[in-house]
Amino acid sequence: MKQITKYVIKNSLKRIFLYRACLVRLRMMGVEKIFSYTLANETGVTSDQVRKDFSEFGIKGNKRGGYDVNDLLVVMENIFHRNRDHNIVLIGMGNLGLALSKYSRFVQRNMNIVATFDIDPFKQKIRSDIPVYSMSRFKEIIDRFGVKVAILAVPEISAQEVADELVRTGIKGIVNFAPVLLKVPPEVVINNVNLCDELESVIYYVHKLIKADTLKT
Amino acid sequence: MKQITKYVIKNSLKRIFLYRACLVRLRMMGVEKIFSYTLANETGVTSDQVRKDFSEFGIKGNKRGGYDVNDLLVVMENIFHRNRDHNIVLIGMGNLGLALSKYSRFVQRNMNIVATFDIDPFKQKIRSDIPVYSMSRFKEIIDRFGVKVAILAVPEISAQEVADELVRTGIKGIVNFAPVLLKVPPEVVINNVNLCDELESVIYYVHKLIKADTLKT
Repeated sequence: MKQITKYVIKNSLKRIFLYRACLVRLRMMGVEKIFSYTLANETGVTSDQVRKDFSEFGIKGNKRGGYDVNDLLVVMENIFHRNRDHNIVLIGMGNLGLALSKYSRFVQRNMNIVATFDIDPFKQKIRSDIPVYSMSRFKEIIDRFGVKVAILAVPEISAQEVADELVRTGIKGIVNFAPVLLKVPPEVVINNVNLCDELESVIYYVHKLIKADTLKT
Repeated sequence: MKQITKYVIKNSLKRIFLYRACLVRLRMMGVEKIFSYTLANETGVTSDQVRKDFSEFGIKGNKRGGYDVNDLLVVMENIFHRNRDHNIVLIGMGNLGLALSKYSRFVQRNMNIVATFDIDPFKQKIRSDIPVYSMSRFKEIIDRFGVKVAILAVPEISAQEVADELVRTGIKGIVNFAPVLLKVPPEVVINNVNLCDELESVIYYVHKLIKADTLKT
């Protein structure tokens, strides 16, 4: 029995990423020690929230003297297994898939796209650092590289079918760029990244701001 | 005085997008009427949450007979100004920027990238449907097309500088793909889309699942 995707990426995890981005910037500015209220203030949440999130992810620190910025970043690296290499595959070598396969930030953060897949034999001949395979070799490749996580960048219409195949073959986590809600079993982690929604959110708020401004004057 | 970015895209708005995706699928399956608990069940939230979110965005429906799926979708279209065209610009024509400029889903949702910008004169000669301009023409172009929203796909190192320029020139909303926290004035809407974080979230949960599985056996 398949279940519909639930919210899998918790907001607390998203905030941890935000704290980390903030800490990286503070470190660049030469800051060595911070208090939870500094981090709260910089990221727009309450100090209580910061401490609660830290506690949820087992991040400890000496509250009296403040947290050591470097120590916090090391702890976060460990939480996210940043010190280990992660092998990833990518399915769908359209414009977006191609761009993602070349996205150098992934490698800098130890996430290596070891293989890409496309049904189009022409795309399998793309001159690229990362090989483009046919889906028929999917199982062989993910077994060879011990891959558990896949990026899905196929068209909306085939997304569910491909996702089913990934799950059948042993993929445990999917970042889905197809603008469609995918059904996966509860033991599979899915993160839907909908680029249209991201853009539309901003348009929505901008219209609201402009409207509020017009009413004021 | 500049302020650090706060959480601008509310979770309630994200859920509205999720409901909409769900409604679109239900409509495809031939469903005409739904109750809030159906939508709640399909999206993994409570019925109360669905009703609360609907109320926040002024979405009304006859609770007794259920909501009409088509009506709900029309109301949502109006909320998001989907029936109107939105002119957007994109800055940074690297791999990701190029892919985003060709992303056909934006156009299907009435979001038109009318111009792109890059500092590299070579990229300004790219054979593309959308012109690539130098930043020196930014003000002229956004004024001509009445652009208020920009997609930022420049490298991390120049993101803040470019963002400052966009804000100075009259941009009110930014979708930022550079993996860095940008400082913008409070009257500017910013949505940070960090592709590494999206992938890392999934890796984090997959590791947790695998660890839990190992402990069980």
